[in-house]
Amino acid sequence: MQRVDLNSDLGESFGAYTIGQDDRVLEHVTSANIACGYHAGDHNVMARTVKLAADKGMGIGAHPGFPDLLGFGRRNIQTDHKDIYNFIVYQVAALNGFCQLHRVRMQHVKPHGALYNMAAKDRVIAEAIAEAIYDIDPSLILFGLSGSELIKAGKKLGLTVANEVFADRTYQPDGTLTPRSEANALIKESERATEQVIQMVKESKVIAVDGSHIPIEADTICVHGDSPTALSFIERLHAQLQVEGVTVTKVSDFLFK
Amino acid sequence: MQRVDLNSDLGESFGAYTIGQDDRVLEHVTSANIACGYHAGDHNVMARTVKLAADKGMGIGAHPGFPDLLGFGRRNIQTDHKDIYNFIVYQVAALNGFCQLHRVRMQHVKPHGALYNMAAKDRVIAEAIAEAIYDIDPSLILFGLSGSELIKAGKKLGLTVANEVFADRTYQPDGTLTPRSEANALIKESERATEQVIQMVKESKVIAVDGSHIPIEADTICVHGDSPTALSFIERLHAQLQVEGVTVTKVSDFLFK
Amino acid sequence: MQRVDLNSDLGESFGAYTIGQDDRVLEHVTSANIACGYHAGDHNVMARTVKLAADKGMGIGAHPGFPDLLGFGRRNIQTDHKDIYNFIVYQVAALNGFCQLHRVRMQHVKPHGALYNMAAKDRVIAEAIAEAIYDIDPSLILFGLSGSELIKAGKKLGLTVANEVFADRTYQPDGTLTPRSEANALIKESERATEQVIQMVKESKVIAVDGSHIPIEADTICVHGDSPTALSFIERLHAQLQVEGVTVTKVSDFLFK
Amino acid sequence: MQRVDLNSDLGESFGAYTIGQDDRVLEHVTSANIACGYHAGDHNVMARTVKLAADKGMGIGAHPGFPDLLGFGRRNIQTDHKDIYNFIVYQVAALNGFCQLHRVRMQHVKPHGALYNMAAKDRVIAEAIAEAIYDIDPSLILFGLSGSELIKAGKKLGLTVANEVFADRTYQPDGTLTPRSEANALIKESERATEQVIQMVKESKVIAVDGSHIPIEADTICVHGDSPTALSFIERLHAQLQVEGVTVTKVSDFLFK
Repeated sequence: MQRVDLNSDLGESFGAYTIGQDDRVLEHVTSANIACGYHAGDHNVMARTVKLAADKGMGIGAHPGFPDLLGFGRRNIQTDHKDIYNFIVYQVAALNGFCQLHRVRMQHVKPHGALYNMAAKDRVIAEAIAEAIYDIDPSLILFGLSGSELIKAGKKLGLTVANEVFADRTYQPDGTLTPRSEANALIKESERATEQVIQMVKESKVIAVDGSHIPIEADTICVHGDSPTALSFIERLHAQLQVEGVTVTKVSDFLFK
Repeated sequence: MQRVDLNSDLGESFGAYTIGQDDRVLEHVTSANIACGYHAGDHNVMARTVKLAADKGMGIGAHPGFPDLLGFGRRNIQTDHKDIYNFIVYQVAALNGFCQLHRVRMQHVKPHGALYNMAAKDRVIAEAIAEAIYDIDPSLILFGLSGSELIKAGKKLGLTVANEVFADRTYQPDGTLTPRSEANALIKESERATEQVIQMVKESKVIAVDGSHIPIEADTICVHGDSPTALSFIERLHAQLQVEGVTVTKVSDFLFK
Repeated sequence: MQRVDLNSDLGESFGAYTIGQDDRVLEHVTSANIACGYHAGDHNVMARTVKLAADKGMGIGAHPGFPDLLGFGRRNIQTDHKDIYNFIVYQVAALNGFCQLHRVRMQHVKPHGALYNMAAKDRVIAEAIAEAIYDIDPSLILFGLSGSELIKAGKKLGLTVANEVFADRTYQPDGTLTPRSEANALIKESERATEQVIQMVKESKVIAVDGSHIPIEADTICVHGDSPTALSFIERLHAQLQVEGVTVTKVSDFLFK
Repeated sequence: MQRVDLNSDLGESFGAYTIGQDDRVLEHVTSANIACGYHAGDHNVMARTVKLAADKGMGIGAHPGFPDLLGFGRRNIQTDHKDIYNFIVYQVAALNGFCQLHRVRMQHVKPHGALYNMAAKDRVIAEAIAEAIYDIDPSLILFGLSGSELIKAGKKLGLTVANEVFADRTYQPDGTLTPRSEANALIKESERATEQVIQMVKESKVIAVDGSHIPIEADTICVHGDSPTALSFIERLHAQLQVEGVTVTKVSDFLFK
């Protein structure tokens, strides 16, 4: 039996500012990546979101990012290994406080935005993140781009890793995502997106932009719930996976040491 | 045998900004109140300061404050019970991450600045703080102004509390500190300050500004190390307490359930 | 001929966070209060909003607030005259930079949220704001709650002032707004709100919550555009004022020295 | 007669955090680059520093940086032309507010830290900065690394530019500064530093690390006052320039259209 996790970024509101439709998205995904106050989220949003996710029995993860609320964590910031290590510790630990209140174990850590993208390619950054997570709690699962430097760094340390794939992004022959600056970066037809996911999950492969078939591991699928269209896509993807005999469940149900 | 703790605020530097002489102060005090990134401190400063304090075997405490770096947490901010509860959880948990790295248990929590002062008088604020600490870890010791609302709120919940006194501040007949706006708020002669501390610790009383003798509990003494004079005062106070037969040691050595 | 201004808070978005429907609201109001980056807004939002307002020929105003993005400027922060003076200078000047780019004169300054409310009652705060505005440019119009301390402070310095009234709030016999904590603070029926505005504008009086008729000056009406209902209310209010023979136009068209 | 300006970064304190010895440095330099609240400085520090500099009759300049207090503006942040343009407008305009209070004209703009370094090499960034300055006030003088892309971008727009040189840094054969990561990046002997400056100012050339003589324009010399040694270096440099017949005076005294 095949299994896969659906994860989504939640808890990205801040003060009077609301982003996303967390209460709706929570109905359809199995793991929640919760912002930790550096690029998005605040202590009140974190409290609320952890409670919602805990009540649903979802896999709860920290979603640490660069300290850049203005840029929503989407801008590369040049910094060093120690700084990254320390801000990962800070953010993961802060979110963990809210997990403790609800007597739930944190399931995973997924870096956000620019940090995620940099960690996919840069070994130093990948190692800083993996080491921080390992030092806090070696039973945490590390989410990273399937096959990336981050996944490699996590494995090397002995962390359980979850290879993440994207439904709506195209892939290059080397297994990386087509940069958003390219015309063909996004898959806009929801059927094609669903097909790509099914293939990645069931056959462990994806068809790259040049038509070549490349191997890919898919433990968890990243989905977004920031529009009504996006929400209904998640719903249909979830249904279609079940039709195909794939169980949709949080990663800690099937990935463990 | 009498025992008392000497505590000081540490880890208040931020990025390129340095405040205090932490490495010097650490030599003379037994408990460290470490800023958590809201009113002062950042993840790198926290990492460094927790390591220093852990290496010394000091009592390590979280020093949460209002989210107000510009005001250094010294300005009253009007907010509600839930917000305070949540930002205490956030800050204490974040600092706890660094304690975990060094395999040390956090000893205490002491609110900072305006939050400390407001919690001394306002029951709602006091309860929000005490509840947050209790919910995170009921074995944490709560530091508050001796006899204040914060101490009462902690006791009511069953927390171990440490009554804090000040060497360099005068007291009102009702046991509160003379406001800094008054001319006689500060004790500037270090001998008189030392005498006041000795009396508070050994006799559990203090002479108020009107000459009356009032009862006061003194578990921990707040000292500051922000000037060479301040540092040498701490050193002499520490020595004089020992001469008087008082053991200077961290609160967790003598306060426990 | 009677004239009145309709003003609304605009440019409150921040980075990836969107608040309000500025492009819609701009169609119906005559003056824009633009956030300056302390409680809301950022340099990109300010650039965009000033351009939009300038293109429409609206009255452009700075909307300075406390440095508190997390609290959206709605929380009282205890600070002093000099600090308020300086942050008004900073925020007004920053917005003025964008006005200069578009060769438009800034029309007015309206303090935001908690600062507005505190300035309505506290003479020291009112004077700090009025002095800062006067020192930057004595031709700026000061918006304040009708008859408040802020209006008095502005008049005393010789600033042109615009008495602001609220369509959807009830009034106390002393001319202050009923606090939001009271059950009857808000007027929810749009017809009653419209009637109140018409009466304030045409008869310079309002019926207080106790039924007494009290005098009130109404130069500008504060409206909000944060919901479809709110938008259609503005539209109908604007139309009804015209039916009643009141010209809706920016304050600088009818208030000057 | 040869003339040169001595400039220094001032007003970098923030809230309770103090950096530098502004009151001492002001005695020895002729132009002040004042931080604008994004990477350092706050509205109170800006008010104080502009007043000090205005009282001394110094050339006053805005010193805008990336919005990164934690990194003190020293970290590269990936962003776009429009964002840079807008935050330059914001910061320069904000500082200008304080200049207006004191009836002084702002003399110049010098980007800070990572922004300065990026603008020296990246044409897009250089142009964003130059355009923002030109659009605010085309009479402002642009400070940039001598011969850099920033200087070129300013000249192209018709801005008056001031070529900046460094006393304590070595130069590469192509006229760029030796990166700080290199062993020979800094000149530690104050005599050699003084000689290099004299040669740059009087002969318009500098000896690069490979021994070659390269042409360099020197309108203004960057000095730092963050240590007693640094202060006495400035003092001696100032004296030595006068001995050599070079008049030390602010750039607006000798650079104009």
